[in-house]
Amino acid sequence: MSGNSIGKLLKLTTFGESHGKIIGGVLDGFPPGVEIDFALIERDMKRRRPGQSEISTPRNEADVVEIVSGINNGVSTGCPISFFIRNNDIRPQDYNSVREVFRPSHADYTNFIKYGKHGITGGGRSSARETATRVAAGAIAKCFLLKYGVSVQAFTSGVGNIDIDKDYTKYNLEETEQNIVRCPDISLAKEMEQLIIQAKQDGDSLGGRVSCLVKGLMPGIGEPVFDKLQSLLAAAIMSIPSVNGFEYGSGFEGSYMKGSNHNDVFQADAKGKISTLTNFSGGIQGGISNGNDIYFRVAFKPVPSIFKTQKSVDTKGQNIEFKLQGRHDSCVVPRAVPVIEAMTALVLSDLILLETKNKSL
Amino acid sequence: MSGNSIGKLLKLTTFGESHGKIIGGVLDGFPPGVEIDFALIERDMKRRRPGQSEISTPRNEADVVEIVSGINNGVSTGCPISFFIRNNDIRPQDYNSVREVFRPSHADYTNFIKYGKHGITGGGRSSARETATRVAAGAIAKCFLLKYGVSVQAFTSGVGNIDIDKDYTKYNLEETEQNIVRCPDISLAKEMEQLIIQAKQDGDSLGGRVSCLVKGLMPGIGEPVFDKLQSLLAAAIMSIPSVNGFEYGSGFEGSYMKGSNHNDVFQADAKGKISTLTNFSGGIQGGISNGNDIYFRVAFKPVPSIFKTQKSVDTKGQNIEFKLQGRHDSCVVPRAVPVIEAMTALVLSDLILLETKNKSL
Amino acid sequence: MSGNSIGKLLKLTTFGESHGKIIGGVLDGFPPGVEIDFALIERDMKRRRPGQSEISTPRNEADVVEIVSGINNGVSTGCPISFFIRNNDIRPQDYNSVREVFRPSHADYTNFIKYGKHGITGGGRSSARETATRVAAGAIAKCFLLKYGVSVQAFTSGVGNIDIDKDYTKYNLEETEQNIVRCPDISLAKEMEQLIIQAKQDGDSLGGRVSCLVKGLMPGIGEPVFDKLQSLLAAAIMSIPSVNGFEYGSGFEGSYMKGSNHNDVFQADAKGKISTLTNFSGGIQGGISNGNDIYFRVAFKPVPSIFKTQKSVDTKGQNIEFKLQGRHDSCVVPRAVPVIEAMTALVLSDLILLETKNKSL
Amino acid sequence: MSGNSIGKLLKLTTFGESHGKIIGGVLDGFPPGVEIDFALIERDMKRRRPGQSEISTPRNEADVVEIVSGINNGVSTGCPISFFIRNNDIRPQDYNSVREVFRPSHADYTNFIKYGKHGITGGGRSSARETATRVAAGAIAKCFLLKYGVSVQAFTSGVGNIDIDKDYTKYNLEETEQNIVRCPDISLAKEMEQLIIQAKQDGDSLGGRVSCLVKGLMPGIGEPVFDKLQSLLAAAIMSIPSVNGFEYGSGFEGSYMKGSNHNDVFQADAKGKISTLTNFSGGIQGGISNGNDIYFRVAFKPVPSIFKTQKSVDTKGQNIEFKLQGRHDSCVVPRAVPVIEAMTALVLSDLILLETKNKSL
Repeated sequence: MSGNSIGKLLKLTTFGESHGKIIGGVLDGFPPGVEIDFALIERDMKRRRPGQSEISTPRNEADVVEIVSGINNGVSTGCPISFFIRNNDIRPQDYNSVREVFRPSHADYTNFIKYGKHGITGGGRSSARETATRVAAGAIAKCFLLKYGVSVQAFTSGVGNIDIDKDYTKYNLEETEQNIVRCPDISLAKEMEQLIIQAKQDGDSLGGRVSCLVKGLMPGIGEPVFDKLQSLLAAAIMSIPSVNGFEYGSGFEGSYMKGSNHNDVFQADAKGKISTLTNFSGGIQGGISNGNDIYFRVAFKPVPSIFKTQKSVDTKGQNIEFKLQGRHDSCVVPRAVPVIEAMTALVLSDLILLETKNKSL
Repeated sequence: MSGNSIGKLLKLTTFGESHGKIIGGVLDGFPPGVEIDFALIERDMKRRRPGQSEISTPRNEADVVEIVSGINNGVSTGCPISFFIRNNDIRPQDYNSVREVFRPSHADYTNFIKYGKHGITGGGRSSARETATRVAAGAIAKCFLLKYGVSVQAFTSGVGNIDIDKDYTKYNLEETEQNIVRCPDISLAKEMEQLIIQAKQDGDSLGGRVSCLVKGLMPGIGEPVFDKLQSLLAAAIMSIPSVNGFEYGSGFEGSYMKGSNHNDVFQADAKGKISTLTNFSGGIQGGISNGNDIYFRVAFKPVPSIFKTQKSVDTKGQNIEFKLQGRHDSCVVPRAVPVIEAMTALVLSDLILLETKNKSL
Repeated sequence: MSGNSIGKLLKLTTFGESHGKIIGGVLDGFPPGVEIDFALIERDMKRRRPGQSEISTPRNEADVVEIVSGINNGVSTGCPISFFIRNNDIRPQDYNSVREVFRPSHADYTNFIKYGKHGITGGGRSSARETATRVAAGAIAKCFLLKYGVSVQAFTSGVGNIDIDKDYTKYNLEETEQNIVRCPDISLAKEMEQLIIQAKQDGDSLGGRVSCLVKGLMPGIGEPVFDKLQSLLAAAIMSIPSVNGFEYGSGFEGSYMKGSNHNDVFQADAKGKISTLTNFSGGIQGGISNGNDIYFRVAFKPVPSIFKTQKSVDTKGQNIEFKLQGRHDSCVVPRAVPVIEAMTALVLSDLILLETKNKSL
Repeated sequence: MSGNSIGKLLKLTTFGESHGKIIGGVLDGFPPGVEIDFALIERDMKRRRPGQSEISTPRNEADVVEIVSGINNGVSTGCPISFFIRNNDIRPQDYNSVREVFRPSHADYTNFIKYGKHGITGGGRSSARETATRVAAGAIAKCFLLKYGVSVQAFTSGVGNIDIDKDYTKYNLEETEQNIVRCPDISLAKEMEQLIIQAKQDGDSLGGRVSCLVKGLMPGIGEPVFDKLQSLLAAAIMSIPSVNGFEYGSGFEGSYMKGSNHNDVFQADAKGKISTLTNFSGGIQGGISNGNDIYFRVAFKPVPSIFKTQKSVDTKGQNIEFKLQGRHDSCVVPRAVPVIEAMTALVLSDLILLETKNKSL
């Protein structure tokens, strides 16, 4: 396997399998002198951790982040920041019955093809457990962004067939963390919660949508022509398990509009400060931030782990029927919110560091 | 500027500005011994070139690809393949009137912020002209894919508010290149054409959708956890000018489904060959190809170059009105079809080369 | 800090400070299905570990390598291999007296300039302790090389002003590990040992030379024009603390020869197998291995940690005198032997993986 | 082939074969707003070009650098800088007689093994012709360094068995370009010239040494632990054809010294400015520049192209005798001087850009 690193100047490398003892990461290229807000790290880990509410998997992981290098007296030293998260609540026996089964829409089959039997046994990199390391690293990146006044906030914008309004300005995003679904529309949040509980009772699962808003990003961030802001964001977001769609600004809906309606007209205020009347561009033009809000929306397919009897094939190539055991979310969207933020924070931090070189003279 | 390279083992670096004398690229890491089909390169260049039909910009570029290294007697040598494309029909005077204007939803403003006055003047990397080099390199990558029986075919699946059926199996994709819109639904193709002509007459512009189908890709391609097949595809596709959405497999629509409907059930035939009954996963599970068709859909926002009087701000920060001169597509979608294919071919070739290392023992 | 990763397809990222609790590494891109020889890892760690003999620093570290991911039942899985080494015998108090002093020829001053006060306090990446992680990763790479019959053996070829004959074929390299200096010339080894003991008694230190021999490397390894075999080797070797010279094949001496004497004449045997009569090229031509033995020689400057009163400057910019406390080698060369091997094994493994792509068709 | 790019933020990609029509390069990541001194580029090209004096190959190349992108009105725009150099004086017929011969100590055999027959025919990347593109890019990097007051000067310090004093401070380096050997010791320069002429008359060849001095580099440059200043320098320098040794500071000689003599004692002047009494460290400690002069020395093996009858093997595996035709230097050292400078300038520029990220807060 390769591909366990992401980033150019700020590079995260993650390791560890879902059912091993430890997962972790190394964040290299983090500048010295940045104050690390450990409470922020802990808060984000709690937002992602399993067992946090009645709609999340009951697997019980404290998900404490142990930082073992790169930070001294609460300040980054410029050395690589490495951290571990212990896997405490492992139940490999839950997997005994499916160890020889290619679960539908899981990565069992493709891992077997790619890595052979050793890959499938020792693997566990395909589990969403791996995203815990992303959240830890992303929280550290947020500490860097804070120095620039950049904030990243994601929220649930859809569960199953329920959607909130796409215009995020209609919501008070402070409400997001007030409910277990992480949706700023309180009334729809309740409906989404019911939908998830119902799916769980049915042994079924749901997909959904997460939106993300970045405020305060300075203009000039993004490296055309291939490392455009939206390119690196899309790559980072699409690497999250279960994500199968990404759009920024007006996105797919915008592709139905006419240019005369879609163009974001510039205007200067009395002091010459430039802004746009609309923001269909989602804060990005030509792959570079323009100083407006950055926003994008992400699709999550329904969780493939369902508790109904399913047909499939085993590793010997036999057609079989099986029923999944174990503990799984019926909808990953609420727990995916901090993961989206983490990947966004990592990409933005990396691109801000890259931009400094243009300013070096 | 940096970010003008893409790929890990097969790396494309492009250069040249829209209004300079030459644009070009270097494709490094291309294996020796691959026969190069020059007719294929020429054909793809013609599919992208301006002036190809009444619905494309009249800028007249032959777009002949001159390969100056890396190929000998029609076969790759293992040396970097470099190529040039001359810009013949340059009319910098068309830009005189807007040289000092930040055109709405263009990259003028963000380039100015990022690169300063030298960037905006000498720039022209933000122009879609740059995609000609992608098509040339992508056509060379297709020659590599041919050795493996991998084909890449994109087609117009939507223009403005007209969409074809999302199920590509309903179409004979051979029809795609039989009409100037590049849509396999002949009757809708005609409607789309009319829509584009109307927009042109109105001095307005349209967006649209392109779908892409990959057939014959072996299972095992993709490098989790960050360089998943969909991650690298998304990054490559999102780097194309005007793209603002990407989804693969069931995409956004799939996020409204339940797991029990969405799971792709495996089945083995009498010989033990494994396939799936459905393909909501779009041929990718856990970031790795599973041997099925890969398919994805891309959103293009409406072209920002419209020929109506618009408000904006100039480089001195003054509010102004202006009207664009010059030659521009009213809808880039038909010409973007080969660009989508090119980026896809580059990503797949790179990942196939990466996969060989797992097979090295 | 960045630059804590090395390698292209096989990438090692290391972390941890000399006086922290843990140092470690992540080795990504290691192919699945390789048997890991834990005894080999342990043996190499013992060859490098402090306190191994009377001529090495008495700091007492067991240097046990704990592998926490990527290996299952003794076989690599294709997931990133991560490992930890605990620092047990830390005596930060030894550094109290010099915490504010820029020790001559150490990295205190340059780290202070680069990373500020947080860097100097939390640092410890400049310590040779960091090389323990290289040895662990290198031993894993040796398991990969074993599949191809490639062996890497380094040995002490000079200590202070004592040198062995440069022609390695004159020695039985099996003798190398039979003495604590790791020199295959038994009689000179004894002299070197005495020299080191004398330096230690004098509170002084010595430099020296290490040679390295690679046998069994297939021809065709190396990636011109910038990633030539000797380029990547030199970069890897020069990154080892205290190394200040690298030469391969005939090296500096060869630069005094004439072409007519230096050319390695090819000859074919009865079966057409090609070899060369001499090997001044050190097994590398045009940056690519030619199937012969690869050999190179490395210079180590004398250890800067001496126990005489020295003049220097403190962090406040005051001229001072100080005398170092603590535990240090008087000559790092004997313990550097396995470090040289480790970096070599990592580079060769990486380049072998890279070469597979040329063979993919 | 891959490996035709070098650099992290400032990345040079080169292309073109010795006997093709064009060679060239793309320099990506060069900051906008830097004034480009075309006379400097021309001067460096002339210092490297063949046919420049009676001791260089008579192949006659004007080596004019045509910059086709990235520079506007003499100032860098931030877009990739691409440039071409035409090959005018090609005589492929000179190679007819050796096309089937593996020339001793050339890269014919290893290229054949690595790239097959297409590689050997179409190749020509192993020729020193390729270094023309390095000199062009290096001269552009020098323009960047000028902004920081950093100068790079290389000079011939040895030809065959003639060496100048290793202490560069004994020479007036202004003399370097006053003689065709590029040696600052005027009297030894004359002897070296005679030695080269004699070798040429004998149909033989010589090796030699080049030293390089960097003045004005700010402290703090270099990225431990793997991308140390000396590591990246060594990799870049070792990638130059015929180089087989690299040492910085005291180098191999220093490895015979004792620590008490070798340590560079810090001292502060009345204003607190810190310097060292000696500079055995060559301006680098812990992989980071310390503000002193950087200096290093490079070994070049004797040119393998000699004009005596030689034995070898042909591509069919037959033992043969052959005599080389064509035009070759008898000693590459005088023309290699600007190549050493170019690679040094590229590495320093890249590391300066990397360092800016530590200063971003």
